[in-house]
Amino acid sequence: MKPNLEKLVIVGSGPAGWTAAIYGARADLKPLVFAGRAASKDLIPGGQLMLTTEVENFPGFPEGIDGPSMMNKFFNQALRFGTRVVTDEGPKTEKDFTANNTLYQSFQNVAEIDLSQRPYRIVGDNGYEVFAETVVIATGAKANWLGLENELRLAQSGGGVSACAVCDGALPIFRNQEVGVVGGGDSAIEEASYLAKFASKVHLFVRSDKLRASKAMQARVLDNPKFQIHWNTEVADVLGEATIEGVLLNQKDTGKQDTLPLKGLFLAIGHTPNTGFLNGQLSLDDHGYINLPDGAFTQTEIKGVYAAGDVADPYYRQAITAAGMGAKAAIEAERYLAHAA
Amino acid sequence: MKPNLEKLVIVGSGPAGWTAAIYGARADLKPLVFAGRAASKDLIPGGQLMLTTEVENFPGFPEGIDGPSMMNKFFNQALRFGTRVVTDEGPKTEKDFTANNTLYQSFQNVAEIDLSQRPYRIVGDNGYEVFAETVVIATGAKANWLGLENELRLAQSGGGVSACAVCDGALPIFRNQEVGVVGGGDSAIEEASYLAKFASKVHLFVRSDKLRASKAMQARVLDNPKFQIHWNTEVADVLGEATIEGVLLNQKDTGKQDTLPLKGLFLAIGHTPNTGFLNGQLSLDDHGYINLPDGAFTQTEIKGVYAAGDVADPYYRQAITAAGMGAKAAIEAERYLAHAA
Repeated sequence: MKPNLEKLVIVGSGPAGWTAAIYGARADLKPLVFAGRAASKDLIPGGQLMLTTEVENFPGFPEGIDGPSMMNKFFNQALRFGTRVVTDEGPKTEKDFTANNTLYQSFQNVAEIDLSQRPYRIVGDNGYEVFAETVVIATGAKANWLGLENELRLAQSGGGVSACAVCDGALPIFRNQEVGVVGGGDSAIEEASYLAKFASKVHLFVRSDKLRASKAMQARVLDNPKFQIHWNTEVADVLGEATIEGVLLNQKDTGKQDTLPLKGLFLAIGHTPNTGFLNGQLSLDDHGYINLPDGAFTQTEIKGVYAAGDVADPYYRQAITAAGMGAKAAIEAERYLAHAA
Repeated sequence: MKPNLEKLVIVGSGPAGWTAAIYGARADLKPLVFAGRAASKDLIPGGQLMLTTEVENFPGFPEGIDGPSMMNKFFNQALRFGTRVVTDEGPKTEKDFTANNTLYQSFQNVAEIDLSQRPYRIVGDNGYEVFAETVVIATGAKANWLGLENELRLAQSGGGVSACAVCDGALPIFRNQEVGVVGGGDSAIEEASYLAKFASKVHLFVRSDKLRASKAMQARVLDNPKFQIHWNTEVADVLGEATIEGVLLNQKDTGKQDTLPLKGLFLAIGHTPNTGFLNGQLSLDDHGYINLPDGAFTQTEIKGVYAAGDVADPYYRQAITAAGMGAKAAIEAERYLAHAA
């Protein structure tokens, strides 16, 4: 028998990862979670919700809850049933965490994974090596940002900058206000249409002189007074201290700069699924999401390897859909192991 | 324009229905929910969780929560964003419900639905008629029970009788105890295998002299001392006051009766999805679940009609997977309406 042979290793600690852990632990698989690393650019413990101030659409929280508090509940629920989490000092269990922990800071990233033979081999950043009979990949996707300092600051503080209209568009701060959307693809038009239900006007900032979106999608926003398209336009800065007050725009063809007052800004320039550590061992779709051969299940092309949450979801990318996929992955892993036994 | 034309009508009020309502309401679709009826055998407001004493595996509740309290949170969250619910007196909004409501008793069932043309026509039990541009079917599935009075009483009181091993098998009351499973199909063996992780012994009660389960599944329990199969055996009664103490067994071939002490009993004789009101307008699989043409989506064969939760899920049937499907259905409906507009 291999040393450190695990029944179930989970990579990632957003809603999908912890829900897989809750289900896996309750099925007595004693899951081991590589939760990411606070210093990481990609895989941070708790995932994207750690950057979210208010979650209104996860069922069970009628008054809303802030993202970090919600993820802390998930985390503690996973620990309660016997999940172990790899930290710099090795695997830790519930008793190693204090009752009032916030997400622990020394979780580990996966540095290397080998899916070429079972049991699968997983090595952490600091060299901790385990073998796994089943693996759930739940590393999420990162929204793409322009990379402006003020943009990220106002996104993280809940100051009116967001990369998810479905998550945040219905918030009162955007009602009957002018808001902007950055991007020109299908998802940018989808976000703009969604926002138009609430906002008084939606500005679209498009870098080139045409939309990449399909003709049908374009028809929604062209010649519709609710939308104003700013062609050849880059957002050069986001203005405002506590909340966004406007944007600085670069007119690419003329070189002119302008400011435009706005009460909200939504980024819709795609997502980057966190799959780099897989090194091409699972096939990805055109946008980098892990392919699931049958969309009703989380089974990947490799037996005993499952993908759950945003890393395999180009369409919904919601906490509740990710959590559902996490539960599915653990149930599939449990049944696979029972069958193989 | 039709009278009572709705953008989104949701039929059912379990985790899928309310989550679809939360997402639909936040997308400004002003969803209208037919929540079922407390007096109904099939579609009760809140769904199967109203019969569940303790939910430990829905992420977000690290200390667990009882089913009715959880569903009440879902309900209030849906109301908060503008969901309306059809009651005997017509559609009601948040202000018509008290702050501390438990699930309201006069919700309406759907008596009739016509999906042959858009907008779809839906008629409540008391004749209230609406037309809907999109419909989410989230009516759930009913676990099949033997129908014994003591069985149902101990199931509803959390007395050790359950129709879901994945939900309840890990509870402390079953650890290192002898438990029983009723059924002889694949899912009965799956439940039995799951329970064998915790129980000291698992008894299978099989009505005939063979298992309907596949050969591979049978191999798990035959000649395995952890399992004892009682052939030609019917459970004639469940014994015990506050918690189950045993079962009364009918030996079908000999006519002999026996009692067997048990600390848990799990029903695994299938589920009946609540699709009767559809009158064959959507195709069903062999077990009566609504067919989804692409399992990654909740779109049914009819455009603008979605199915979410247990009614379309023969495999997982968990509150969290149902909730994920509810969110998907509302997002699909919103995008469909935006596209059609």
